[in-house]
Amino acid sequence: MKIINDKDNQYFSNNWNYCIGTGRLGLALQKEYWDHLKLVQEKISFQFIRGHGLLHDDIGIYRELNLPDGSTKPFYNFTYINRIFDSYLQLGLRPFIEFGFMPQALASGDQTIFAWEGNVTPPNDYDKWYNLIHAVVSHFIDRYGLEEVKKWPFEVWNEPNLVNFWKDANKEEYFKLYKITASAVKDVCPDLKVGGPAICGGSDEWITDFLTFCKNENVPVDFVSRHAYTSAKPHKVTPEYYYQELFDCDHMLDELKEVRELIHSSPFPHLPFHITEYNTSYSPINPVHDTPLNAAYLARVLSEAGDYVDSFSYWTFSDVFEEADVPKAQFHGGFGLVALNGIPKPTYHLFSFFNKLGEIILHRDTECIVTKRGDDSITIVVWNVVMKKGHDFNKDMSIDLPFPYKEAFIKRQTIDENHANPWKVWKQMGRPRFPKQNEIETLIEVAKPQIRTERKLVIDGRLPLTITLTKNEVSFIEISRVKDETETYIELDDSLIPSYSKEWSS
Amino acid sequence: MKIINDKDNQYFSNNWNYCIGTGRLGLALQKEYWDHLKLVQEKISFQFIRGHGLLHDDIGIYRELNLPDGSTKPFYNFTYINRIFDSYLQLGLRPFIEFGFMPQALASGDQTIFAWEGNVTPPNDYDKWYNLIHAVVSHFIDRYGLEEVKKWPFEVWNEPNLVNFWKDANKEEYFKLYKITASAVKDVCPDLKVGGPAICGGSDEWITDFLTFCKNENVPVDFVSRHAYTSAKPHKVTPEYYYQELFDCDHMLDELKEVRELIHSSPFPHLPFHITEYNTSYSPINPVHDTPLNAAYLARVLSEAGDYVDSFSYWTFSDVFEEADVPKAQFHGGFGLVALNGIPKPTYHLFSFFNKLGEIILHRDTECIVTKRGDDSITIVVWNVVMKKGHDFNKDMSIDLPFPYKEAFIKRQTIDENHANPWKVWKQMGRPRFPKQNEIETLIEVAKPQIRTERKLVIDGRLPLTITLTKNEVSFIEISRVKDETETYIELDDSLIPSYSKEWSS
Amino acid sequence: MKIINDKDNQYFSNNWNYCIGTGRLGLALQKEYWDHLKLVQEKISFQFIRGHGLLHDDIGIYRELNLPDGSTKPFYNFTYINRIFDSYLQLGLRPFIEFGFMPQALASGDQTIFAWEGNVTPPNDYDKWYNLIHAVVSHFIDRYGLEEVKKWPFEVWNEPNLVNFWKDANKEEYFKLYKITASAVKDVCPDLKVGGPAICGGSDEWITDFLTFCKNENVPVDFVSRHAYTSAKPHKVTPEYYYQELFDCDHMLDELKEVRELIHSSPFPHLPFHITEYNTSYSPINPVHDTPLNAAYLARVLSEAGDYVDSFSYWTFSDVFEEADVPKAQFHGGFGLVALNGIPKPTYHLFSFFNKLGEIILHRDTECIVTKRGDDSITIVVWNVVMKKGHDFNKDMSIDLPFPYKEAFIKRQTIDENHANPWKVWKQMGRPRFPKQNEIETLIEVAKPQIRTERKLVIDGRLPLTITLTKNEVSFIEISRVKDETETYIELDDSLIPSYSKEWSS
Amino acid sequence: MKIINDKDNQYFSNNWNYCIGTGRLGLALQKEYWDHLKLVQEKISFQFIRGHGLLHDDIGIYRELNLPDGSTKPFYNFTYINRIFDSYLQLGLRPFIEFGFMPQALASGDQTIFAWEGNVTPPNDYDKWYNLIHAVVSHFIDRYGLEEVKKWPFEVWNEPNLVNFWKDANKEEYFKLYKITASAVKDVCPDLKVGGPAICGGSDEWITDFLTFCKNENVPVDFVSRHAYTSAKPHKVTPEYYYQELFDCDHMLDELKEVRELIHSSPFPHLPFHITEYNTSYSPINPVHDTPLNAAYLARVLSEAGDYVDSFSYWTFSDVFEEADVPKAQFHGGFGLVALNGIPKPTYHLFSFFNKLGEIILHRDTECIVTKRGDDSITIVVWNVVMKKGHDFNKDMSIDLPFPYKEAFIKRQTIDENHANPWKVWKQMGRPRFPKQNEIETLIEVAKPQIRTERKLVIDGRLPLTITLTKNEVSFIEISRVKDETETYIELDDSLIPSYSKEWSS
Repeated sequence: MKIINDKDNQYFSNNWNYCIGTGRLGLALQKEYWDHLKLVQEKISFQFIRGHGLLHDDIGIYRELNLPDGSTKPFYNFTYINRIFDSYLQLGLRPFIEFGFMPQALASGDQTIFAWEGNVTPPNDYDKWYNLIHAVVSHFIDRYGLEEVKKWPFEVWNEPNLVNFWKDANKEEYFKLYKITASAVKDVCPDLKVGGPAICGGSDEWITDFLTFCKNENVPVDFVSRHAYTSAKPHKVTPEYYYQELFDCDHMLDELKEVRELIHSSPFPHLPFHITEYNTSYSPINPVHDTPLNAAYLARVLSEAGDYVDSFSYWTFSDVFEEADVPKAQFHGGFGLVALNGIPKPTYHLFSFFNKLGEIILHRDTECIVTKRGDDSITIVVWNVVMKKGHDFNKDMSIDLPFPYKEAFIKRQTIDENHANPWKVWKQMGRPRFPKQNEIETLIEVAKPQIRTERKLVIDGRLPLTITLTKNEVSFIEISRVKDETETYIELDDSLIPSYSKEWSS
Repeated sequence: MKIINDKDNQYFSNNWNYCIGTGRLGLALQKEYWDHLKLVQEKISFQFIRGHGLLHDDIGIYRELNLPDGSTKPFYNFTYINRIFDSYLQLGLRPFIEFGFMPQALASGDQTIFAWEGNVTPPNDYDKWYNLIHAVVSHFIDRYGLEEVKKWPFEVWNEPNLVNFWKDANKEEYFKLYKITASAVKDVCPDLKVGGPAICGGSDEWITDFLTFCKNENVPVDFVSRHAYTSAKPHKVTPEYYYQELFDCDHMLDELKEVRELIHSSPFPHLPFHITEYNTSYSPINPVHDTPLNAAYLARVLSEAGDYVDSFSYWTFSDVFEEADVPKAQFHGGFGLVALNGIPKPTYHLFSFFNKLGEIILHRDTECIVTKRGDDSITIVVWNVVMKKGHDFNKDMSIDLPFPYKEAFIKRQTIDENHANPWKVWKQMGRPRFPKQNEIETLIEVAKPQIRTERKLVIDGRLPLTITLTKNEVSFIEISRVKDETETYIELDDSLIPSYSKEWSS
Repeated sequence: MKIINDKDNQYFSNNWNYCIGTGRLGLALQKEYWDHLKLVQEKISFQFIRGHGLLHDDIGIYRELNLPDGSTKPFYNFTYINRIFDSYLQLGLRPFIEFGFMPQALASGDQTIFAWEGNVTPPNDYDKWYNLIHAVVSHFIDRYGLEEVKKWPFEVWNEPNLVNFWKDANKEEYFKLYKITASAVKDVCPDLKVGGPAICGGSDEWITDFLTFCKNENVPVDFVSRHAYTSAKPHKVTPEYYYQELFDCDHMLDELKEVRELIHSSPFPHLPFHITEYNTSYSPINPVHDTPLNAAYLARVLSEAGDYVDSFSYWTFSDVFEEADVPKAQFHGGFGLVALNGIPKPTYHLFSFFNKLGEIILHRDTECIVTKRGDDSITIVVWNVVMKKGHDFNKDMSIDLPFPYKEAFIKRQTIDENHANPWKVWKQMGRPRFPKQNEIETLIEVAKPQIRTERKLVIDGRLPLTITLTKNEVSFIEISRVKDETETYIELDDSLIPSYSKEWSS
Repeated sequence: MKIINDKDNQYFSNNWNYCIGTGRLGLALQKEYWDHLKLVQEKISFQFIRGHGLLHDDIGIYRELNLPDGSTKPFYNFTYINRIFDSYLQLGLRPFIEFGFMPQALASGDQTIFAWEGNVTPPNDYDKWYNLIHAVVSHFIDRYGLEEVKKWPFEVWNEPNLVNFWKDANKEEYFKLYKITASAVKDVCPDLKVGGPAICGGSDEWITDFLTFCKNENVPVDFVSRHAYTSAKPHKVTPEYYYQELFDCDHMLDELKEVRELIHSSPFPHLPFHITEYNTSYSPINPVHDTPLNAAYLARVLSEAGDYVDSFSYWTFSDVFEEADVPKAQFHGGFGLVALNGIPKPTYHLFSFFNKLGEIILHRDTECIVTKRGDDSITIVVWNVVMKKGHDFNKDMSIDLPFPYKEAFIKRQTIDENHANPWKVWKQMGRPRFPKQNEIETLIEVAKPQIRTERKLVIDGRLPLTITLTKNEVSFIEISRVKDETETYIELDDSLIPSYSKEWSS
């Protein structure tokens, strides 16, 4: 029994909704991408969005024109990036800029990553790179205004500590890139915010080295960024799927704490710390992303990670994503909160539940968070992570709450293996790769949480709840006051209706 | 066990969706009315719409201008009726015209009906009435074209057999009105369809007399119309509610059969027969309309009544309705398929279920209808009417179906006392008369049917279903072929995902 | 030649867009009303909306229920007013409350006004009236929150100085009504704002008497309200139209100045002063409202009236209006900025032009206003009121502006007798009372301002404009900087395109 | 003076709206593309749409999976093409299929075309190609139904007579490709329609050879296709523009006639003949496409080409197009009817004018077409092509029409150098490459045709029109009956309104 009191409360940060990840920015031109992002913003309202490919050739910012005299001249084309950023701002999102990857005309080599072939080699001419960064940032200010752009973080490159994201994972080369990029940004305006090193986990000495480098070389740095995933190396890879083990739930939280301490003991102890990517698996074709487990597993992360980091950005909002080629099936293990054809996955609902929590934490532990909202209503997220196979993993939970009214209306929204699990229904349908319109409609219909309501008497200012959680259930519970108006209906008597009785409950 | 075979099938008429009733036409100017009608058309797609008040003063078609010389002159104002009919046609609905009630300037007396004061007295000048009808019908043809208007039925007055709807329920006066009205319509174009006598139940000698009158006087008549309600007189009336008993389900069907025979033995044995109003209770403040019972009760009517009548028009699509004054609460016993604030009631879903039935009846009895659609899928509506109080009225049903594929995907949508019953949740909330935005959202969320899906093996071409129906449940079941594509995912193995197993069903 | 300098500038108030008038509030339930209001808010963005009929029986707030014991009980029904105010707030508008007219059940007499029969007699029981006001205001706070409702002005009744708006124009009775209403409002919350006496022009001694009464009786008053129309009594009335002379343009401005001085010398010299209705004619069937003259005439009022009053509320935004019965034709002399079927009238554009003016006045006189916006662009409204018949009343105007860039892009939007004048085109069509869809489309198409653009060199920081204004023209001119990018198109040469030359101007 | 009589009329085909061209199909995933297509369909309503790249790797239909045993297996991915075709059908468009270009995994070489690198080499394995075509066509039938797909033409490849579109322009290789492709299509269903050779102009012997080949080898062929452009080789090429001369207006019409005769004398004399691409210039960076000249020039083609060919498909509907890389400026000489940011070009209006013509031709010559609609209204398109530089090329035209009513309402919509010419205004603005929101709004506002209306008396059943056409003007004139209702407004007198007179014309 969790006995909860309304004192010594703390504020709940919204670091969990600070930023969301996206497939490469060029995909933001697509209609389905935009439809999904709208769906996400309506229920979740992220503040920033971050993705790769700002400088990739499909957006085409950097080109070299061939002049009549045989020489070439850089040409900066903002046709597409304007369209993309205009649409983000229209949906209430600001860009969390990531500079990368290398435009072909500036690349020093041929190495690429992903099906869409992002070039991961250093620039062939750092002066041209400096000019490009300077031109891009200047353009943003010209179009969106300095006050707006001062709010945008500028992050340099992505996971340079991996050989497939940065040629040879060359640390010195990265520091050089960072230094020149940062100076280009700050030369436009010293108030703009620049940061790095955007590494994935496993090489945290890069952070120490990076901050030391900045200190020693007097290079500006406004924030530290890093990624975090909680899955092991794949133990099986098929032509369409990766299968991986998940680490324990504590794994990610411990990692974040450790890096935060690392920063605390660095030359820049108070720098903001952004997790610019996280998820369970780092693979866009791991089916765990489609499951209720993914939501149940991440519940605790959303509840607690904001204590250690200034933001953590779920990777990614939509299965409109092409790193492992065009998606080959309706469900294919993509990162998205939203699957193809606009079907919300369980993790979408997890985020929407957190979006309705109150500002004040009444209670928090490893299986629930209880908050209060401004209107005195109480909101709770509870979860039951089960990584074992089979059924019969129900968990009972009792929560005893303070509630200063006579009666409570309780609304419970539930996702679990049998509710809001379109992946399961799709399997029942026979895993149709390209479902038809009526199948899509069914999948959208079943992708809604189960809703249960009840009305309860409050006794001596206390409201006891007893909840049974099924396997991988996440429930969102709202408790609000009942203002009963029944007395105002003169001589009302439901028992005079055929088949009904007097009680509201029947 | 119902053993069903695919032979000797009959076609299922869509007479149930031919027409829908509406509050007085003047309400059709309102935005909420339009929003509800759109909601209804999206899922149900009625073909015609019929309501009172075409000639009522709020639409203002008939006026008399005061001329400078002191005389007056009739003025026909089509500003509002154009707007209304334009909007109907835009939503795919044609008007089922009812001529009435009397414009004040044409009325011979003061008697009115309803909170909105429809005048129910004969015209003070039948020439002016003739001119009015002629002008109105001519205008419809001018605006919408003759081909369109030839499809519209023109019905003369409403329930003239009741003293509160027609002064003294004067039969001869009604026949006079009918004769003059019909001649005005036919004088515009003989191909237009005119009919009556639009009576309520209980005076079916009017029908015989009416048809005899038409025969004897050589008065044109293209259809017979009548109403049908299945509730007794109110046994209690409060300031806000009527309470009534409901007759047995057979009551209405027998009534329709009898009237059909009456017409068969009249001078016009083959006339179309339209039930231009029906419902359980005839009162707009009877709470039965808000209940799951209302839906379960009417299921058999939708299934069978089309065998006896050419149309039957549910009275009415929306609680935007003012006969008993402006609605005083979110739920108030209104006729509507849709409650205030766009909340679908159980009966809305009953209609949407029937709208998805196939064209061929495989089986039909007093508790279910089984049909086949063009794509070989099977669709079923089952119901369990319980007019007793209390719980524990579950009904088990077994249906053994022919199905020519290996596996079936079964989708079941259910409404009952605990699902798609916003009236119940509203009572839990304390019956808020004017709910706030967040309460409305909850009521809309809970107003959706429960959806259950499963996948079943077909054995020797037979698919046995076993269903348990709860009190006042109506379920819609769709059975479609599973085309399993699992084999195309090379080396797929869901058991490699933490917490999941190999089977699609787990 | 107007020589304009950029110094000694003053701020331009937006008092002109503080409030807009509406037909009786019950009409706000209608879809066409809502569509027009949306159209108005998109281009003009008023802040408040005021209309009659809050307490009229069509909204039905006040009813008396008949109890089983034979007694009656007041019932406050907020179903419709919630829907109305919800929709206003959704469109960015707050209610400017006017308490009136009298619910039938509370009325002391039968006297009504308008086709829609607003009852204009005092309450039959001032206690019940007090309770009604208290209940209504309390409900607003319950639904919309105190912080919101504190922004709403509460005005008591409408034009009590006229015998057709207030029985016998009884001043003492009005003061009594005011006192009781004000105390009901303040008893709910003393921070709410209440005012009066809402008189029409011609009896300004009411204002003095009213403020003296408030002083003497210690009655709260937070603002003074009055109306202003600039037309004489009708010199001809036909069954469908009123014809009136218009006073000189100065007439209204002088009136406002005088009343402002009157308040200055009252016991409450600093009270806000709201013109809660104004227009040229006070008749809803005066065709002047449909003309370009109406726009040209009011231009100076929008430019200057805000110097004397805290708001002035154009009466009204839409021809969805029923005071003189249901409108009998597409154009019928209604007050609306928007005519039936969503057709903007010239005055609509006048307001949209003012909505784009800058915050700083560079110059203002009786025929133009010149402002500067934050982005350095200059915006001008110019007009040419011609109340004489015939053509050939062109006016030439020269304006010499300071402009600190090399070249200017000039965009001029014009409405006059031949542009954005759908009334004229409708007359060419033969004045169809109920135009068909293709006619409506043509009227909407021709209802757009003419747009002319040009590019001009700035010489020594000065930009001279020479403008010819046609009869009743209003033009909106925007002058912005040209940043020429032509040089960046390498070897561009338009003369190589068949039929074109090198110059941008050709 | 053109004297026009209402006899010996002929029907006007709508071959001009049968089909429209599009940038590569992969672009159809984009939101801006969809917005433009919606804009086009709303006013023009094309029936089919044809573009390159169905099999290009960005849509990703053809892939080869690497199996665990080291082998590979074809995989057909319909995720994107379903989304694209679903959206076409939603907008009322059917696909005019073009098979091409070569998926990388099937290509026999590296040669590509366009910035987006379409591979133009034959398949490396014709069996795999056959399987691909068979799978694709089968999938279309599975998803959209056979009845639908039977309406779609299937065209094999694009311009194989050019070395840059088909390796070595190898005719025998093309015939082989055609034969195998056609048999794959017909093996799915013999009722499907297949055709070629999709050549550009200048090698019409390909058509003779192609049809002879089909005859000799007994290869199915259901239609002949070819392209037609009317511009010479570029005389100047800059880094951003092509400049070309245009041939005379007769040029294209003569060409079409000649090819039609060629087919007539072939072994398949009655085959349908589709011009699957046409325009003035064949370059996506020729500024002529942005000009009024382009519209005026093509008017005669739309008027007459349908006499010779079964369809002619304007290349293309939108500047969302990437053949010459991402567009580098708002106006850049793209093919589109709609420029970036949703701005209609003059040619868009030309098509929308033709879309409103009637079915019966009353008169047609080289500068106008006069038609009659079902409602007796007369509709005219007139034009004045001027390929010379400078001003002062006005043309006067007199048309004397039969009109069987007393008065006519004449509506004239005009595009010319000064109306609906956003390209000119953009030049005045300084050719901003990436205009800001307010500039885009201005460009959209000025992109509307000028509208003039007048009312004229008909004398002895004849209506004489005198029109002055400016340089490169195209005007659309609608003449409809005036049914004057003025008499119904009792004692109406506009001269009683200040500043107005009695006449409707004033």
